[in-house]
Amino acid sequence: MALKRIFEARSVAVVGASEKKGSIGRAVMENLLSSFKGSIYPVNIKYDRVFGLKCYKSVKKIPGEVDLAVIAIPAKAVLKVLKECGEKGVRGAIVISAGFRETGEEGAALEKKLTDIAKKYGVKVIGPNCLGVYSAHTGLDTIFNPSDRQAKPKPGTIAFISQSGALGAALLDWIAAANLGMSHFVSYGNAADVDETELIEFLSEDPRTKVIACYIEGVRRGRDFLKAVRKASSRKPVIILKAGKTTKGARAVASHTGSMAGSYKVYEGALKQSGAIIVEDLGELVSASKALALQPPAKSPRIGIVTNGGGAGVLMTDELISRGLEIPRLSQDTIKQLEKILPPTASTENPVDILGDAPAERYRDAIKVVLQDPLIDVLVVITLMQSPALDPVRLKDYLKEISRSKAKPIVMVAPGGVYTEKHSKEIEAETGIPVYKSPEEAATAVKALVDYGIVRSQALNTLV
Amino acid sequence: MALKRIFEARSVAVVGASEKKGSIGRAVMENLLSSFKGSIYPVNIKYDRVFGLKCYKSVKKIPGEVDLAVIAIPAKAVLKVLKECGEKGVRGAIVISAGFRETGEEGAALEKKLTDIAKKYGVKVIGPNCLGVYSAHTGLDTIFNPSDRQAKPKPGTIAFISQSGALGAALLDWIAAANLGMSHFVSYGNAADVDETELIEFLSEDPRTKVIACYIEGVRRGRDFLKAVRKASSRKPVIILKAGKTTKGARAVASHTGSMAGSYKVYEGALKQSGAIIVEDLGELVSASKALALQPPAKSPRIGIVTNGGGAGVLMTDELISRGLEIPRLSQDTIKQLEKILPPTASTENPVDILGDAPAERYRDAIKVVLQDPLIDVLVVITLMQSPALDPVRLKDYLKEISRSKAKPIVMVAPGGVYTEKHSKEIEAETGIPVYKSPEEAATAVKALVDYGIVRSQALNTLV
Repeated sequence: MALKRIFEARSVAVVGASEKKGSIGRAVMENLLSSFKGSIYPVNIKYDRVFGLKCYKSVKKIPGEVDLAVIAIPAKAVLKVLKECGEKGVRGAIVISAGFRETGEEGAALEKKLTDIAKKYGVKVIGPNCLGVYSAHTGLDTIFNPSDRQAKPKPGTIAFISQSGALGAALLDWIAAANLGMSHFVSYGNAADVDETELIEFLSEDPRTKVIACYIEGVRRGRDFLKAVRKASSRKPVIILKAGKTTKGARAVASHTGSMAGSYKVYEGALKQSGAIIVEDLGELVSASKALALQPPAKSPRIGIVTNGGGAGVLMTDELISRGLEIPRLSQDTIKQLEKILPPTASTENPVDILGDAPAERYRDAIKVVLQDPLIDVLVVITLMQSPALDPVRLKDYLKEISRSKAKPIVMVAPGGVYTEKHSKEIEAETGIPVYKSPEEAATAVKALVDYGIVRSQALNTLV
Repeated sequence: MALKRIFEARSVAVVGASEKKGSIGRAVMENLLSSFKGSIYPVNIKYDRVFGLKCYKSVKKIPGEVDLAVIAIPAKAVLKVLKECGEKGVRGAIVISAGFRETGEEGAALEKKLTDIAKKYGVKVIGPNCLGVYSAHTGLDTIFNPSDRQAKPKPGTIAFISQSGALGAALLDWIAAANLGMSHFVSYGNAADVDETELIEFLSEDPRTKVIACYIEGVRRGRDFLKAVRKASSRKPVIILKAGKTTKGARAVASHTGSMAGSYKVYEGALKQSGAIIVEDLGELVSASKALALQPPAKSPRIGIVTNGGGAGVLMTDELISRGLEIPRLSQDTIKQLEKILPPTASTENPVDILGDAPAERYRDAIKVVLQDPLIDVLVVITLMQSPALDPVRLKDYLKEISRSKAKPIVMVAPGGVYTEKHSKEIEAETGIPVYKSPEEAATAVKALVDYGIVRSQALNTLV
């Protein structure tokens, strides 16, 4: 894979490296110095040393091998540097510089030349006009927002590619605060060379990536893109948030990145056919990514619910049913077992209401019974942790054991404030069961698990 | 208003008062001792003193006047106590005790007797089988969940009534964590006497309440309810989340509270006709309540957007348009003024993209220009605070001044993590502009402001 040179780079040249406060060259240097595990070569004609490292006048002057050049200099100087990279044998470049196609005709001409050089020398280029790459596992990090404003997620399995840099950065920050782990983040900007299709092809084969999430405004090579999504989807879920769904939104896309958003209906149909998990908004993108990163896909849309609050059970029912999912009757055997372990006023129907005074042990028992029901393929556990009867720490320990098998996906809902959020995060971190604040978020998560279950079974059938 | 006795009570008897750990009687006593501003009379045949206060053998033994009795004793003892309340002249009671209609026929018979006694003696009863009341302004608080698990909102203008106690408590906790202010929360349980209709009638006249939010499973007196909603809506927004929308959900309602959920389509139509703001889920309930508590209703569905991120502008456009709202062209005059103050590559079309390097001053200037455009009646400000160019503290100061007039509603969007959330809370607290994490949440908020604007103008027209 050509893109491996970028994402697995062991040596990086920073063209435009600087100690100047507020400069991108400084921010990139600081990021790399604090997290990158390989060699770093500052390049800047103006300096002899940058942050104590020897600074080179040009990429060509660097003695050792260079896998990747990060280019953060004015647009008009980029072509020359990229050519030098080619001559030096640098096979990957991230061009952060703006001032290309997004600025008009002149910029577009410059970008055309950039693409030509990239092709001629076989340099894979991400950008221009982008934030670049954050790879949590290797510490490659060109996202130049200040670290006090822009958190980066811990290493994990979610990859996220974004046509919009600023929005991508905001979501990266959001994902970090949600304590989710990430493999790679890519803001690919104008996509002069590497585009969404090539990125999905790479991530599909990347062993660290379990889930591919995408924010896309327009697609360059439609047919190739669908092919890449189809191939990737047979291995791992590809979640897509497509912006420009409405005519007005599509017009805004055109003025933003110059992409053609196209008809959303056509896109949506083709993407679903190709196995993509379509989400409607930012919240859904995060909810679905979390579920698919943490839980196995569902074997059917038949969902069991266990709750200590009747009202929350009703809302959950509405949310699941309105998404086309099923809440079947439980088997007679399950109901009989539930009758034995639950108080007489509990509801042994699905949703199973184990009542407001349910301790963690009643949850454990009811969950075990419902999980083994052959009529159920997904379990939703609702906890209102305001109830003094429920010890969330004991519940966490039981769930740790129960969730070990990962035979059927489990999703949790815990609406509330500070106490609830603290324990929700702990449960999620220690059991791998995704916890959501509201029934609607959890329903999005369940829907994604069910949708991807269907995609997987179709992919398997195709192989047979 | 008969309910004033409860919500403005100056003296409260706690029947079942106790120091016993884990008892409801203790929790209610602790709540009242820590927050209630009036007199507290513990009542319990077993004790002489509770938390240092003289404890009475019966309500009738209390020397002074008693406005309200909070009853937390076994169901079978409730009737006698309620009768004594009637004889003593206590005009309000909150019956927390469970064991009535929700437990079957015998309980239903007991509840019937409770209702009869309430009517006979003219005692207004909230409950049974409820969490009761939290009135932030007077400190009346019978919500007996432990305070480390269950936060209570600060005094404010949102009233929230909930048929489900546990879900209501969870939402109370959520609202407190969101730093929103509340006038009254009521969990009214089985509604043996006081029901949703009477509560809305009361809240409609309550000067502290600016917004009425409701979680409702089934309605007892349909016609009266619609009448109450219509009357209240002409004064203040009534936001309704109706559970049991799907057939399956309606069945879950029946097994939860025994209410008939009815056909949602019929409900929805009738409620909208009556001026209610319908929301679809818990998140929307919170988003809409916040917007309507903080901002004036919109005069039209014509929205202007100012953003420092093109992608976020596109998503916002999609969300607003798909909710039937409008993002019109700006007037020629506005565009001319924007051209003067914005860099050449900025977009002066709506959404106005002031670019990623926009400082707070560029926001201030663009916001002022767009706000004065007669073609715009709502403003959405999107900030990606990861950008180092934007100082959110300076922006806050500008917004404080700009939002003072409250001529047109303003809603903000700020996706991100810890830094963004901190500054979002500060902006919201100091400017009164509601800030949302995602375009979809902000769109719900805008829709609520537009919907209520229509309701208000219709109400005014009816008066004319």
